[in-house]
Amino acid sequence: MSSPARTPAPPYYAVIFTSVQTLDLDGYAWMAERMEQLASEQPGFLGIESARRDLGITVSYWRDLASIQAWKQHVDHRVAQKMGKERWYQRYAIRIARVEAAYEFLRPTMV
Amino acid sequence: MSSPARTPAPPYYAVIFTSVQTLDLDGYAWMAERMEQLASEQPGFLGIESARRDLGITVSYWRDLASIQAWKQHVDHRVAQKMGKERWYQRYAIRIARVEAAYEFLRPTMV
Repeated sequence: MSSPARTPAPPYYAVIFTSVQTLDLDGYAWMAERMEQLASEQPGFLGIESARRDLGITVSYWRDLASIQAWKQHVDHRVAQKMGKERWYQRYAIRIARVEAAYEFLRPTMV
Repeated sequence: MSSPARTPAPPYYAVIFTSVQTLDLDGYAWMAERMEQLASEQPGFLGIESARRDLGITVSYWRDLASIQAWKQHVDHRVAQKMGKERWYQRYAIRIARVEAAYEFLRPTMV
């Protein structure tokens, strides 16, 4: 994902997932891609943004808390969560936040 | 910043800044470092997390909306915002969100 997510006008919800990986990343890239695809197919999904240097940050956007809760409980997602804890993540923080305002800047095209 | 920010119990606020850079990054690294330092000295600042691959994501955490507003208006920050628009950013999105829940995972140390 190489540009900001296109989200509707607020309010909506953001899940901010901040993580530090272990050195054991077998299977991680495949799973991360699969989870991003699967998340995008869930009801209430609005968009996702992801970046990593030392720290990884993934922000996913959702219509409401019920959509977030349903995705958290998705059976395949639960498998991914378990593998994340057992293998891929040294630590992480998850924050659920209600987006109340949003604005965008887009550079004017030079003529 | 290479680990999740240590923030107090919710509620508090997050500013999610998602950006795509231009190719003209003269002065950017210096300014980014200076703004992170300056932000951390502002009243109400709680923490910051940053990562970039193609997309850059910086999430800063604040006690309340008034702290965010004051930081937005800080004179040195306004200079940085102007240079960002004129030079460093192709596009960006800013979202202001109220963090309502948060939890952490820390890998148990193996014995």
